Amino acid sequence: MIAARRSLALRSRMEKNRLEAFSDGVLAIIITIMVLELHMPEHANGLADLKELLPVFLSYVLSYIYVGIYWNNHHHMLHSTRRVSGGIMWANLHLLFWLSLFPFITGWVGANHLTPAPTAVYGFVLLMAAIAYYILQRAIIAQQGHDSLLAKAIGKDFKGKLSPLLYLIAIPLAFVSPLISTSLYVLVALLWLVPDRRIERMLVKSERE
Amino acid sequence: MIAARRSLALRSRMEKNRLEAFSDGVLAIIITIMVLELHMPEHANGLADLKELLPVFLSYVLSYIYVGIYWNNHHHMLHSTRRVSGGIMWANLHLLFWLSLFPFITGWVGANHLTPAPTAVYGFVLLMAAIAYYILQRAIIAQQGHDSLLAKAIGKDFKGKLSPLLYLIAIPLAFVSPLISTSLYVLVALLWLVPDRRIERMLVKSERE
Amino acid sequence: MIAARRSLALRSRMEKNRLEAFSDGVLAIIITIMVLELHMPEHANGLADLKELLPVFLSYVLSYIYVGIYWNNHHHMLHSTRRVSGGIMWANLHLLFWLSLFPFITGWVGANHLTPAPTAVYGFVLLMAAIAYYILQRAIIAQQGHDSLLAKAIGKDFKGKLSPLLYLIAIPLAFVSPLISTSLYVLVALLWLVPDRRIERMLVKSERE
Amino acid sequence: MIAARRSLALRSRMEKNRLEAFSDGVLAIIITIMVLELHMPEHANGLADLKELLPVFLSYVLSYIYVGIYWNNHHHMLHSTRRVSGGIMWANLHLLFWLSLFPFITGWVGANHLTPAPTAVYGFVLLMAAIAYYILQRAIIAQQGHDSLLAKAIGKDFKGKLSPLLYLIAIPLAFVSPLISTSLYVLVALLWLVPDRRIERMLVKSERE
Repeated sequence: MIAARRSLALRSRMEKNRLEAFSDGVLAIIITIMVLELHMPEHANGLADLKELLPVFLSYVLSYIYVGIYWNNHHHMLHSTRRVSGGIMWANLHLLFWLSLFPFITGWVGANHLTPAPTAVYGFVLLMAAIAYYILQRAIIAQQGHDSLLAKAIGKDFKGKLSPLLYLIAIPLAFVSPLISTSLYVLVALLWLVPDRRIERMLVKSERE
Repeated sequence: MIAARRSLALRSRMEKNRLEAFSDGVLAIIITIMVLELHMPEHANGLADLKELLPVFLSYVLSYIYVGIYWNNHHHMLHSTRRVSGGIMWANLHLLFWLSLFPFITGWVGANHLTPAPTAVYGFVLLMAAIAYYILQRAIIAQQGHDSLLAKAIGKDFKGKLSPLLYLIAIPLAFVSPLISTSLYVLVALLWLVPDRRIERMLVKSERE
Repeated sequence: MIAARRSLALRSRMEKNRLEAFSDGVLAIIITIMVLELHMPEHANGLADLKELLPVFLSYVLSYIYVGIYWNNHHHMLHSTRRVSGGIMWANLHLLFWLSLFPFITGWVGANHLTPAPTAVYGFVLLMAAIAYYILQRAIIAQQGHDSLLAKAIGKDFKGKLSPLLYLIAIPLAFVSPLISTSLYVLVALLWLVPDRRIERMLVKSERE
Repeated sequence: MIAARRSLALRSRMEKNRLEAFSDGVLAIIITIMVLELHMPEHANGLADLKELLPVFLSYVLSYIYVGIYWNNHHHMLHSTRRVSGGIMWANLHLLFWLSLFPFITGWVGANHLTPAPTAVYGFVLLMAAIAYYILQRAIIAQQGHDSLLAKAIGKDFKGKLSPLLYLIAIPLAFVSPLISTSLYVLVALLWLVPDRRIERMLVKSERE
């Protein structure tokens, strides 16, 4: 009987592993093919030519950090997951869909640095990815129950709620000042980079005040 | 002796895992490099320029969903598999071959939206992938025996038989109306997206009437 | 103590797994990015335009089968391997290096169908990959000892010895008749596709006569 | 209780595995897409045309070896790691970032063989990757404690300290003689390719003298 239980545990771990492996594969490819947007014009072989690449490079760095954050969070979210339903699979594919648009949008933003439309569309893709992540989280919690580890770990989820709000502000703002919008995208990235607990304590404090 | 059995179980699980890992890798790359077909013409930096991308985007979405369906089904099919023979390996590589043509055909369809030839060839690739999937299924069942879990799970396999039929209708139809053919491809995708049991019950009912 | 042994077994399995996982990743990417060589010229949207793609498509099919054979054989070879030394790692990376040239050489052959130089270079890459595979095999046997499973499984290794010989004939022949050289490459692929035992029995017989 | 311990051990192994799997994926893609820089100009179908590819090919070979070295060392470094903290994850992503620039810089160096600026920037990327590797090493040791296996295995870490020094010399030298700088990059690669112990004994000896 113990064998049967272990066999079951192994099976569901395998299932989850395959979801993780597939997601890791897609994220690894996304993060790596974005760099294909970086390329020098022919006959450009001086250090000064690197300056022209700076906008593409900076948009690459920002997108790299975003994909890194998603990979990191995805990792933690699935860590507490045991079973993987069809709904979770499709919610996961939906998230990967929006993330798969990163190489395209990063290239477009990089080629047209600080112009309104690309900046706004970049924010739109970030917003849709954030929504897709939220849906995936809900799908996992729905299966685990609201007393689950994940539900408790997320808690009030300040960052998860603040991020889409900031994107929503940044998208129309791009038509006024692409620089401010871009700064908001950088701000959200920093918000997630700073280790969790401190930020959450800060936000809890500021809420109390 | 228990150790020996466990060791054997581990070994075959490893073998299957490598088949899955390789397939996951190929599918992850296919689903991600398709997005490389999406790129803006130079100096296009307005929202209106996005309209021009719409056909490529829509064909990307459809192909993404198809690869997602294949990954999902592949996952379930291999789940019930224990040993992996040379025949299964090649049947699997054969399936991945037709799926690997998705980025090419998606790009061609996207660049020539709703024109007869690309629409017909898209259907042809879908048809060949469906046939390859069927061959893989047969190879697995042949090894497991007809009383196997997979054989029972598939049952009469309505969707598996209906899909190639619809492709066969859609391919010549593309030379009359590419729009109708494309609608049939969308219909097949929806057929697979809807959770299994309900559809099957519906079809069983309609068969009885 | 049993725990210690198991822990050791797990550790070396992990090591091997990472070598396999990395190789699977590289092979999956090679087999998939080759398809990027397939693309339609702009405004080509008729069935007749597909004819122009035929040489690229055929060279893609051949290379796909070769990568599939290597993945298959690699899989079996590592299956019998327990420990992974630094030498095996570099022998493996060396093999992957030559295989990584497949997308380049497939594209070149496809763009210049049945011309001498690309056909000869294709054979050269096949030859180097075969040599690299042989070196990897030796490195594994050297570690396991000549009584090892792998050494016995390989035996006289007719196919392994015949293939480089056929490449060596095909390479200079490409400057006389690229068609004959290409036929030899197809022949070698078929040799490996046909299940092992029958071929080996046939060769053993023909040796005795 | 033994079950609980094993479950814990499995969990942290899984976590590490996912970090390894993601890194393997990214490294596999980096090493494979670099080859996309290799492509023939149209209508080039003679052996003489290969000569023009030689600089790109050589820079590809060097970068391939570097990525191989990083994969190899990364493998050994993580082997001794048990738990994976957020800091280690980001240090790892930071390392992968600089390695992800290899395809770009390899293409640039290949297209402008032995010109000062690309040669210097190649060295800069190598330097940053070496620094990122050092940071990752420190992050792992900080978690494990200074008596850890990794800390002992690294010891005085001659190669780890010599490499960035040689890059620092090679970068400004590129503006005097790109050939000497490139030779230094090759030298560092050879230093890492030669099996560890002998080199270390040699360096230890030369230190005593």
